[in-house]
Amino acid sequence: MRVPRIGITVGDPGGIGPEIILKSLPFILDEFKARIFLLGPKPVFSAWSERLGIAFPSFSHLNIIDATGDMSLVRIGCDAEENGRISFAAFREAASQAADGNLDAVVTAPVSKLSWHKAGVEWAGHTEYFQSIYPGAIMSFWSEDLRVALLSHHVPLREALDLVTKETMVPFFRRLHRALQAYGMGEFTYLVSGLNPHAGESGLLGKEEEREIRPALEMLREEGLSVKGPYPPDIVFRMARGLKNHMVVALYHDQGLIAFKLDAFETGVNATLGLPFVRTSPDHGTAFDIAGKNMADPSSLISAVRLAFRFSA
Amino acid sequence: MRVPRIGITVGDPGGIGPEIILKSLPFILDEFKARIFLLGPKPVFSAWSERLGIAFPSFSHLNIIDATGDMSLVRIGCDAEENGRISFAAFREAASQAADGNLDAVVTAPVSKLSWHKAGVEWAGHTEYFQSIYPGAIMSFWSEDLRVALLSHHVPLREALDLVTKETMVPFFRRLHRALQAYGMGEFTYLVSGLNPHAGESGLLGKEEEREIRPALEMLREEGLSVKGPYPPDIVFRMARGLKNHMVVALYHDQGLIAFKLDAFETGVNATLGLPFVRTSPDHGTAFDIAGKNMADPSSLISAVRLAFRFSA
Repeated sequence: MRVPRIGITVGDPGGIGPEIILKSLPFILDEFKARIFLLGPKPVFSAWSERLGIAFPSFSHLNIIDATGDMSLVRIGCDAEENGRISFAAFREAASQAADGNLDAVVTAPVSKLSWHKAGVEWAGHTEYFQSIYPGAIMSFWSEDLRVALLSHHVPLREALDLVTKETMVPFFRRLHRALQAYGMGEFTYLVSGLNPHAGESGLLGKEEEREIRPALEMLREEGLSVKGPYPPDIVFRMARGLKNHMVVALYHDQGLIAFKLDAFETGVNATLGLPFVRTSPDHGTAFDIAGKNMADPSSLISAVRLAFRFSA
Repeated sequence: MRVPRIGITVGDPGGIGPEIILKSLPFILDEFKARIFLLGPKPVFSAWSERLGIAFPSFSHLNIIDATGDMSLVRIGCDAEENGRISFAAFREAASQAADGNLDAVVTAPVSKLSWHKAGVEWAGHTEYFQSIYPGAIMSFWSEDLRVALLSHHVPLREALDLVTKETMVPFFRRLHRALQAYGMGEFTYLVSGLNPHAGESGLLGKEEEREIRPALEMLREEGLSVKGPYPPDIVFRMARGLKNHMVVALYHDQGLIAFKLDAFETGVNATLGLPFVRTSPDHGTAFDIAGKNMADPSSLISAVRLAFRFSA
């Protein structure tokens, strides 16, 4: 088995990113046969190590890819220009190293969109960055009980409805399936949500199921994909919960995320599929309100590293 | 305190309706200072009482409003014409008695849409019946932890989006608030979901929040309603969970029901607001698969009666 090279970005240096990294490192280094690379300024990691009284572990398979950054300008517990500069530089370096084949996976600690904005970063967040570079990127969400992929994400709901077509769905499923196959996920069954109430109730409550969704799923079945549905949107997540090797495909952002966030709030993992490398992140934010208080829970970050390891091992 | 008169319809006589009624009656008659009226054919209640070995309780405040129905034509465990005839007749009688002021509340046991269809009933279900008679009826869902009202329900999603206007929202909230006031619910705060991802992110991900929703909520606030939002749809249900005297207003069917059904599957109560009487029902179906097996759980029906009692007492 090859030893995956996993990069972990510092995230916003004024949020809980450095803290959850420091707290999870002993576990990560012990648990996973991986080479771990931290991406961010050494002074940031040192300052947080000292502040929290968490020793920086020394392991031969732990490396820091240093970045410039002035810890004295970092503001803890709120957004700030230097925070954005540092978190973006670390993220961009990780994406670039991964694109060049020097990392197999990138795990991103949470960033502040406002910090990025203050630092003049042109992308609103990680997702927007990936989407601009890799237009076929797919947002997916993973927890113990539930996996959800989104047909579309950061677009107005009206536009999301316009994307529910055979022409969009068929290539989407092919990309999704190819990504999971590439990660060695084995046979996956896709449970597809409908768009309309009760999945359209045979056309009475909307036409998309009959005109677009069913024909798309039929084509995909002929290609050998295990796709089922469309199911009523208010049933499919309940159905999928606890089923191994099943993934719900939601047709728009909130259809998937209302369910996922109720079910796995702050414990789930976000995985961007369809990139030339693995990318995961914890499904919570910078938590500025508790930054620096030694209260942050590293378990979602550990889950994100675990999934990155599973995908790239 | 007045003694409410609560009617309970038999539901589909081949489903679990009669069973959950028989199982819950001792509790209901003991717990609530109400006059209880069962609506359905006496032979149906007798046949089920005998089949399940559950004695029919004898209380002075329990009455049966008999209806014609041939138990020998009822099919247990599936839809059938006679099942539909009986369940519709009992329901229509209840609605009519309530409209005439002879009942304060109607609790409806689950019916089969297919049975209704086979019996030639022109409405698809309870909701469609109420909507045709009382166009201002509002669907709401109640559990211990969460309350949700729907701006629209059984319409295609595209049409639901067209209903997100100031002109629709303002009267909707007035009707909703008036209904809860009439039921003596005291001060209620409405947490309003946005329509677009992240509630539109200041217009970047959709215009409805700025153009329609915020101005509508502002008008309602000026009228003295406690309305908050719009909140990101994937956050608002999580926020509301556990808050007393708060109700989430969802802008379309699945926005509300994905959340509610994940949170309170088969234990929640459906309440139709804005009728001239109280109407509640358990939030589960006929459960044909377990009909006649003495396995049905009456707790959702008991919750529905409890809510009907609370609204009408």
